[in-house]
Amino acid sequence: MTTEDLLIQRLLRRLPAPRPYVVAGIGDDAALVRWEGGLVAATTDSLVEGVHFDLAYFEAGEIGHKALAASLSDLASMGAEPRFALVTVGVPDTVGADFLERIYEGIGALARRAPIDVIGGNLTRSPGPLFLDLAAIGSTPKLLLRKGARPGDTLAVTGDLGASAAGLQALKRWGREALGRYPAVVLRHLRPEARLEAARMLAESGRVTALMDVSDGLSTDAARLARSSGVGLVIRASDFPIAEATAAVARELGLDPLELALHGGEDYALLAAVDGMPTEAPSDLHAIGEVIDEPGVWLESIDGHRSPLAPRGWDHTRANYTAFR
Amino acid sequence: MTTEDLLIQRLLRRLPAPRPYVVAGIGDDAALVRWEGGLVAATTDSLVEGVHFDLAYFEAGEIGHKALAASLSDLASMGAEPRFALVTVGVPDTVGADFLERIYEGIGALARRAPIDVIGGNLTRSPGPLFLDLAAIGSTPKLLLRKGARPGDTLAVTGDLGASAAGLQALKRWGREALGRYPAVVLRHLRPEARLEAARMLAESGRVTALMDVSDGLSTDAARLARSSGVGLVIRASDFPIAEATAAVARELGLDPLELALHGGEDYALLAAVDGMPTEAPSDLHAIGEVIDEPGVWLESIDGHRSPLAPRGWDHTRANYTAFR
Repeated sequence: MTTEDLLIQRLLRRLPAPRPYVVAGIGDDAALVRWEGGLVAATTDSLVEGVHFDLAYFEAGEIGHKALAASLSDLASMGAEPRFALVTVGVPDTVGADFLERIYEGIGALARRAPIDVIGGNLTRSPGPLFLDLAAIGSTPKLLLRKGARPGDTLAVTGDLGASAAGLQALKRWGREALGRYPAVVLRHLRPEARLEAARMLAESGRVTALMDVSDGLSTDAARLARSSGVGLVIRASDFPIAEATAAVARELGLDPLELALHGGEDYALLAAVDGMPTEAPSDLHAIGEVIDEPGVWLESIDGHRSPLAPRGWDHTRANYTAFR
Repeated sequence: MTTEDLLIQRLLRRLPAPRPYVVAGIGDDAALVRWEGGLVAATTDSLVEGVHFDLAYFEAGEIGHKALAASLSDLASMGAEPRFALVTVGVPDTVGADFLERIYEGIGALARRAPIDVIGGNLTRSPGPLFLDLAAIGSTPKLLLRKGARPGDTLAVTGDLGASAAGLQALKRWGREALGRYPAVVLRHLRPEARLEAARMLAESGRVTALMDVSDGLSTDAARLARSSGVGLVIRASDFPIAEATAAVARELGLDPLELALHGGEDYALLAAVDGMPTEAPSDLHAIGEVIDEPGVWLESIDGHRSPLAPRGWDHTRANYTAFR
């Protein structure tokens, strides 16, 4: 377990045991509670200046967009339909009303598309960083958790991995100029999209045994799925979906594209264990490995050799990638 | 309107118009949405170090308690039963795991009593202040909003006012030693209680036409109730519920107790417009005035003279009381 997961375990012991109507509590992408015959999914996510974004290369609208996208991705990974959101913004004295308005513009544009209603929130002064905290509530007809993967299932992800991390490295190197050089990967970092439609298709396929989003990096999130399901995962390096632009950034910056894809977070891809690949699947769903009995996460190299894959993605308590900076 | 209310109006224009199932959005204590035949109340509230509390005189458990109490009070003011909460904590490097654990202990103890399930949340590093953001969701059988007060209704509050503000002033003056001198008022500031049971009685009485909690100070919150209802309010200084301990602190610190009671926030009293005082009412419900046709909020002195009461409570955008510091 990561330092973060261990700390959360410890803090959880201070809270009352959830009542039986709580189907999934802390430890999944979103919590699930039974509500009037249905299921409610609830999640919250934060963006903190100097931790999750830097005002040197993030525009106001992008900050608003990304905060909402992260929470929508948590709902997607439960197979939930977005219903409503609550938005908290902590505002330092250096941030004026115009900037704040553009943050809400970013939230509003994505909320309109999702769609999700922003029904409440909170504005507060911050004596330190600008921060956003976004709680999102959705509804779902059925359970789709991290647990449920069974040996023999196929492990699959939507889209490609490492693009957001490549975009971040490009922004750190070239600032906003990176957008001109590598627009595709940089936008993946600045304006990520939650995979709501893909999640809907996966949920409806009836083939998904476990689902989560890859927000902290595949190595870290795969370990969580494996632990929740009580299984092991083999990930095949040869089948790894890495976009050409991600590889190009890696080449120019002297980074290993596989490291970006394995440990880089914020791609908001969906990671699914499926009992046979669904026929009606998102077009960018790729098999990347399989579920096995033996606990742990293993990387299988092109020559078939398996080695343990350590969780080196984003650790919220350290607020950095343990794999690279 | 306060600067805060004006800014919120401006930001709201950037968000999509709520869909029809949203019964009450931004502008009440909590938002209300129709959900599977019932009503869901949702609210979020933040506590930021250096804005809402000071580590010089707040202990960890009190911070956790107060963050949850504030959100529970928002639910109470909608007549809602607490169901579940999401807790975000932004943790500076100076705050260790033990301190964090005591914050959760404070949340947990109140959650057990309320009761409310903490089903999710988020831990993040903060490069600045310690901050908590607490979203709470409840269910309610009927609408209880800020709007609905009618001329001729009685204006009433639960409990006494100004105690929390007196406690804050005592803490600023004497630090934790204030607890020994004036325990009752200081605890009202450090460990406020949401009036869930009182709200339940008021909701069941069928006499309440408008309800809200007094969190930012009566002068500011009464103006909000008046504006939402499209009415005016007369508050009688002679009927004002001020505790003896509040008056004692005010005397010792050279403050006006009526100013503390009119503009001091965080008492988490309930402010209700009632169509006749209910027979089955909370024992500490006091009539303090009446609802009139003429818009505005008026303070009636003991000799019957009416003067406008300016909103000088807590302004979140300025993060101070405009009446006193």
